[in-house]
Amino acid sequence: MPSKQIPIANPPPLAFPSPRQCPGTFCKAQGETSIGRRHWGTCPGLILVWSHLNLLIRNHDLDMIYVVGPGHGAPAALAALWLEGSLERFYPDEYGCNAEGLKNLITRFSVPGGFPSHINAETPGAIHEGGELGYALAVSFGAVMDNPDLIVTCVVGDGEAETGPTATAWHAIKYLDPRESGAVIPILHANGFKISERTIFGCMDDKEIVSLFSGYGYQVLVVENLDNIDDELQNALEWAVSEIKKIQKAARSGEPIAKPRWPMLVLRTPKARFIPASMERAGSDKEQLKALDDWLSSYKIGELIKDGKPTKTVLDVMPHTNEKKLGQHKATYNPYVGLKAVDWQYFGAKKGTSQSCMKLTGKLLDKVFQENPQTIRLFSPDELESNKLDALLEHTQRNFQWDQYSRANGGRVIEVLSEHNCQGFMQGYTLTGRTAIFPSYESFLGIVHTMMVQYSKFVKIAREVKWRGDLPSINYIETSTWARQEHNGFSHQNPSFIGAVLNIKPEAARVPVLSPTTNRAPPFRNWVN
Amino acid sequence: MPSKQIPIANPPPLAFPSPRQCPGTFCKAQGETSIGRRHWGTCPGLILVWSHLNLLIRNHDLDMIYVVGPGHGAPAALAALWLEGSLERFYPDEYGCNAEGLKNLITRFSVPGGFPSHINAETPGAIHEGGELGYALAVSFGAVMDNPDLIVTCVVGDGEAETGPTATAWHAIKYLDPRESGAVIPILHANGFKISERTIFGCMDDKEIVSLFSGYGYQVLVVENLDNIDDELQNALEWAVSEIKKIQKAARSGEPIAKPRWPMLVLRTPKARFIPASMERAGSDKEQLKALDDWLSSYKIGELIKDGKPTKTVLDVMPHTNEKKLGQHKATYNPYVGLKAVDWQYFGAKKGTSQSCMKLTGKLLDKVFQENPQTIRLFSPDELESNKLDALLEHTQRNFQWDQYSRANGGRVIEVLSEHNCQGFMQGYTLTGRTAIFPSYESFLGIVHTMMVQYSKFVKIAREVKWRGDLPSINYIETSTWARQEHNGFSHQNPSFIGAVLNIKPEAARVPVLSPTTNRAPPFRNWVN
Repeated sequence: MPSKQIPIANPPPLAFPSPRQCPGTFCKAQGETSIGRRHWGTCPGLILVWSHLNLLIRNHDLDMIYVVGPGHGAPAALAALWLEGSLERFYPDEYGCNAEGLKNLITRFSVPGGFPSHINAETPGAIHEGGELGYALAVSFGAVMDNPDLIVTCVVGDGEAETGPTATAWHAIKYLDPRESGAVIPILHANGFKISERTIFGCMDDKEIVSLFSGYGYQVLVVENLDNIDDELQNALEWAVSEIKKIQKAARSGEPIAKPRWPMLVLRTPKARFIPASMERAGSDKEQLKALDDWLSSYKIGELIKDGKPTKTVLDVMPHTNEKKLGQHKATYNPYVGLKAVDWQYFGAKKGTSQSCMKLTGKLLDKVFQENPQTIRLFSPDELESNKLDALLEHTQRNFQWDQYSRANGGRVIEVLSEHNCQGFMQGYTLTGRTAIFPSYESFLGIVHTMMVQYSKFVKIAREVKWRGDLPSINYIETSTWARQEHNGFSHQNPSFIGAVLNIKPEAARVPVLSPTTNRAPPFRNWVN
Repeated sequence: MPSKQIPIANPPPLAFPSPRQCPGTFCKAQGETSIGRRHWGTCPGLILVWSHLNLLIRNHDLDMIYVVGPGHGAPAALAALWLEGSLERFYPDEYGCNAEGLKNLITRFSVPGGFPSHINAETPGAIHEGGELGYALAVSFGAVMDNPDLIVTCVVGDGEAETGPTATAWHAIKYLDPRESGAVIPILHANGFKISERTIFGCMDDKEIVSLFSGYGYQVLVVENLDNIDDELQNALEWAVSEIKKIQKAARSGEPIAKPRWPMLVLRTPKARFIPASMERAGSDKEQLKALDDWLSSYKIGELIKDGKPTKTVLDVMPHTNEKKLGQHKATYNPYVGLKAVDWQYFGAKKGTSQSCMKLTGKLLDKVFQENPQTIRLFSPDELESNKLDALLEHTQRNFQWDQYSRANGGRVIEVLSEHNCQGFMQGYTLTGRTAIFPSYESFLGIVHTMMVQYSKFVKIAREVKWRGDLPSINYIETSTWARQEHNGFSHQNPSFIGAVLNIKPEAARVPVLSPTTNRAPPFRNWVN
């Protein structure tokens, strides 16, 4: 726990102004939440965090990205982006900081032509496709790799936390070298409910939660006192930043902490609190209309927005410069870092000879990685050697901070038996401009079938968004296809991943084929992307 | 810890006869493991557990299934199945308990026509397709649901434990009602290595592991003393059974324990221990051949098998009757439990009227579930209500033991935001003969694309295996297709799951289509299976 109270100059609007109440008891008392209530439930917490991050960035001049995991969380991001002027910067005609812009934001929301209700590539500051839950955390860790000054704050909803991909992504700290990489502040937002069922994490008590995440390797701080939620959250964030700096300072001064215990927060807030019990018929029912009006008026919007513009109270908690704002960090919209080219023809095999294309590819990769020491990584579900890419290990090694032998050695290879983590790390690393490669057996790449499809949606829209710059491709090397099944047999056969890539439009994906033995290694730019 | 030592009448062969050594240090000292070494690594632990389970079944007359998670674990299962005579029972011509059968087992292994190196439907006792790791644990929990006397012992490898699906499957105890369901004894087998990289769990110390799994809700016992591994493992298994019986007794006498802390074991053994450093060229190199011979001879196979038959020493630790043997439990090979039929026409809509087909389906399901109170379940990623199936909740409810409101009420619906858990539960429930339904949005069913494909491989082979009986179908209700996107939009679009089902041969899969409004509810037997 932080020992000193950090003064908050201009406290952001309170999302939860009244006394603490047990989330479960509250919601049970109110009966089941309606669709509107449950989708709204995540937004107050997201905005609360956004407001406090603004202050944190101001206090420490941080480079920060905010990854919003919870489903239907876009309204929170969009409101904050409008307030901080990021929507105005990227959409000056539609969403200016004025009455017209505010009206457009509200009336076009979640209808064709407006912003969708999930975070997507149209959302400034976003490096993550919302909707299909589970990937926010792994993406966040990928983004901070080789970005030593970057901190990604990642909110994981307690619904999303039930997914397998998130459940294993908590282990990602074990692959994060504080000497060369930045840090993630994970915030588990436990508001007690998914759409209509209670959540696992909402029904775990603090002892269970602290035990679980301590086991993962974190220091855990639970923020839950609604009487004093602003101070508590701000102090917790200050504590997280100071813990991160300690770990990084130690590693960067040559004395890395073994198994550093990174900070994480658990934010407990009740879902759908203060929403009127009934408001579905507010369009025709005067009582419901009044209840709705009373509720919305309780936010005192007039103190926050005047004449269609955010007031000084709001603007004073923003970061000092535009590029520090959560919606305008350059790494989120114009991050492209090129690779130094390598003469691939040198790695060809002589005509008439027969060599393993994978062995040759390994040698080419070895050279590419040597020439680009901080801008390329390989993620693999422990199949580097069985895929004959081991030549890559001649000048680099594996990176696994929990293993004393690979700690703090700058290894470029992460081998974790989670295709979801491999894909998530690759996405985060790529969407912040660097290049990643994911080799895997053909049958098991399908494990991330939908992640790949969701990612391609993000990229498709990103290419249509004018203010986003180029992105590197994500690169798979699909191996162990039907022609090379050897001893593994039926369980290792499934060609559907390539089928899914081929379904994507040609401007977004390419699929070159290597024969098992070849007389020429492939040009680097031609892999599946 | 158990207080009394359970005497072991006839100790099974020791897999690890010599002093304890740190797995990491050992393997690092020996250099990287070769493919043979690493694939062999899991088998000693699996056989050790199998042997002790035999004794446990004898001691307590248990109904038990053994689910083997680790990849390339089939040799362990096959050896044990041959020893206990289960291979002879199901394959009398090929794998009898005699010299010819033993020779066939060895020479045909992992070549066309023989058993594969991963567990599959040809393996007696198996209810789980091996190879694609991550699903053993969820399948085990599905199998014990509504099987009050069944215990599934599930070994999860420390490679598999890194997968997302496994990471969230540990939460499955929270959906297990001890009043009506059996229990799982999960054994995390931490041998330190995957194929070539260290594992996360192998590099976590006991404090981290105990903290993590206590947080999940377990009581954890670490078995790691190689000097005395047999006694320690047997005592740990005895303890697990006694804890299970306590929890079940309390629940079944009407006084359920809130948040019961189910037992689990962590078994630490070093991988590839005692294997000669080099044996790849044993066919031509005399030194390597001698090293290989010395190593194999150290197992004193002559004391275990004589004249091609298991000796009395081995047979004396087997369960008393065939049906109690791990390879011959009826629930694993002939489990079919039919459903009482319901007159579906009653739930049709009148000609000329328009009704939601999902609402009608919900009403039909309500009736089906009433008529079959212990043999049908629904698993959903919290989409029951948004999919308009809420009529089902009129006579049953959700089942979530961590929530006081749904504890011990026999709810037939589990809503967990993990498609992997939903699919795994459904597979385990179905492969032990009962019927399950999994409704989900079209775009997110693809999350379990490869699980569904692997399951269909198991079923395809199971239908070809003569000694396996009929199985119920697994049933998806795919909703929110392109025609019903409403506010969710692009992120919720992906029709590829149906495409994957259509790729499966028609004798294994059917896909009927319902229009959003219909004048007839579908006959129950015609859903996607």
